[in-house]
Amino acid sequence: MFHNRQITLAARPIGLPKESDFRLVESPVPTPGPDEVLVRTLYLSLDPYMRGRMNDAKSYAPPVQIGEVMVGGTVCRVEQSNDPNFQPGDIVVANTGWQDYAAAKGKWMRKLDPSAAPITTALSVLGHIGLTAYFGLIDICHPGAGQTVVVSGAAGAVGSVVGQIAKILGCRAIGIAGTDAKVRYLIDELGFDGAFNYKTTGDYRARIKELCPGGVDVYFDNVGGAITDAVLFNLNLHARVSICGQISLYNLEKPEMGPRLLPLLIVYRARIEGFLVSDYAPRFGEGMRQLTTWFSEGKLRHEETIEEGLENAPRAFIGMLQGKNTGKQLVRVST
Amino acid sequence: MFHNRQITLAARPIGLPKESDFRLVESPVPTPGPDEVLVRTLYLSLDPYMRGRMNDAKSYAPPVQIGEVMVGGTVCRVEQSNDPNFQPGDIVVANTGWQDYAAAKGKWMRKLDPSAAPITTALSVLGHIGLTAYFGLIDICHPGAGQTVVVSGAAGAVGSVVGQIAKILGCRAIGIAGTDAKVRYLIDELGFDGAFNYKTTGDYRARIKELCPGGVDVYFDNVGGAITDAVLFNLNLHARVSICGQISLYNLEKPEMGPRLLPLLIVYRARIEGFLVSDYAPRFGEGMRQLTTWFSEGKLRHEETIEEGLENAPRAFIGMLQGKNTGKQLVRVST
Repeated sequence: MFHNRQITLAARPIGLPKESDFRLVESPVPTPGPDEVLVRTLYLSLDPYMRGRMNDAKSYAPPVQIGEVMVGGTVCRVEQSNDPNFQPGDIVVANTGWQDYAAAKGKWMRKLDPSAAPITTALSVLGHIGLTAYFGLIDICHPGAGQTVVVSGAAGAVGSVVGQIAKILGCRAIGIAGTDAKVRYLIDELGFDGAFNYKTTGDYRARIKELCPGGVDVYFDNVGGAITDAVLFNLNLHARVSICGQISLYNLEKPEMGPRLLPLLIVYRARIEGFLVSDYAPRFGEGMRQLTTWFSEGKLRHEETIEEGLENAPRAFIGMLQGKNTGKQLVRVST
Repeated sequence: MFHNRQITLAARPIGLPKESDFRLVESPVPTPGPDEVLVRTLYLSLDPYMRGRMNDAKSYAPPVQIGEVMVGGTVCRVEQSNDPNFQPGDIVVANTGWQDYAAAKGKWMRKLDPSAAPITTALSVLGHIGLTAYFGLIDICHPGAGQTVVVSGAAGAVGSVVGQIAKILGCRAIGIAGTDAKVRYLIDELGFDGAFNYKTTGDYRARIKELCPGGVDVYFDNVGGAITDAVLFNLNLHARVSICGQISLYNLEKPEMGPRLLPLLIVYRARIEGFLVSDYAPRFGEGMRQLTTWFSEGKLRHEETIEEGLENAPRAFIGMLQGKNTGKQLVRVST
């Protein structure tokens, strides 16, 4: 039988992960048990949340243990099936992690129709990324037409969908990103009303004020830190802030201090709320129907940054944490 | 005609206000114009928000200008009236500031029935204080029976009402206060389930965990700073935090830095919201009916700390900012 390559956690990173924090190991291809399906990974999703799983810290999900295969969403092809709902050759979205092959219960997989949309969209705009943008923006922030929505990490997987949904809803969308190319992409390709490169901007607070002269009604935060401080100083009365991620803080070796911002919440009678898309599982059907409609109408574009080869997943992951990707970061594991 | 004594803002305080930041001036007693009522102040309310009005900073209300009379809620007796709804001798609640006499439109006053409740309750549990506790707890945090509610500044005017409402609603109420006497008062007199003195506690976070072994579902914050940091580390999933005040920060000469707390909001899917009671004006009737019912049923106690004499208002105000009061801080201006 073919060998299964797996990428495991070799060491808990200090600060930004290094390639040596991961290890490529080989193991036998698993044999599927009762009701299990053997799948071969085609695409692996890389997401910022994975950085959190590498720490030995209490959070909303248990950490990956040293020696364990890194977790992650995947699009796979069924090789063998003991579940009557799946046949060899089926394409499925699953959660089988950083490896070539995996055996798992069919109930944890969802079959894709490759003729309906590119299969990689199941890991981005028509999957957890789209749902994160949808519920985090609409349910937490209920943006109104004409209101100003600011998004940090705007050219990332979630941020780029958030801005597009904001535009569909008739809002002004302002993005914050880390390269001039991303800024142009947001404005020229995705229709953002404005954007700026925080790496070449000295005074974030003044720049946000310039781009949002009427103030910020909604802030969708993927980044945290000084960018978020600056947005909060520009809120409007009754503004809503959705905390999706805090990627600027994930690789700090010790907690960063920042200005105390809670007094601003009184001044603006504003609300800040953290969320996890998994809490919305009972409403995923609603979200998927809307996202699929917008996608089929051509209103939601998806951009991908694809790394070739499972062995390069650690490098791609580290690059994503540094903002090297535009749109969804994927790894093509096999074809 | 009698002289009118007024306390004006003499200088913008740096840090904790000093008595020399205020000035006692004399002026003629005003003559009421059309639809105006001349009132004599009986009681003046002192509230933490006044500290913010002393700064020349943009906030939710304009600052008091140098030389202007300090703002504040009052209970007064009508001396003369050009408004047919008020007669000399009527007792009213008004917003006439730190002075003996004032003339103002009757529409800004509300007549009190001195036989229904002590007139000072109009400045506390049956006035803006009670309404602040009511809406900030119930509308922002919707506490459920059996849930744990933590209150900072728990022995202050608002905090003591918050804890009592929490108990009425069947919650566990845990208070944070600044003296052992206040801690005893909260537990023995107001029925809190637990409380601690932050001035004699080393590790707030551990102490809160001890008093809230099941975690914190609701946090009503009057104080901010390190106390609030510690509570946020003890939140439960889907916790709600109401930011009413941040008194620990009001007298800082420069902004204090604190740990970045937004990642916690993702872990706990928690919400933090600032509010001002004035935004609830359309619903004051609802709040007053409920507070009056609870008060008349003996379920809401009110504690007062009364300073004698308008000339001592600055000292009492400074003391309140240092936590010297228990319950509502008032000044008896005349009888």
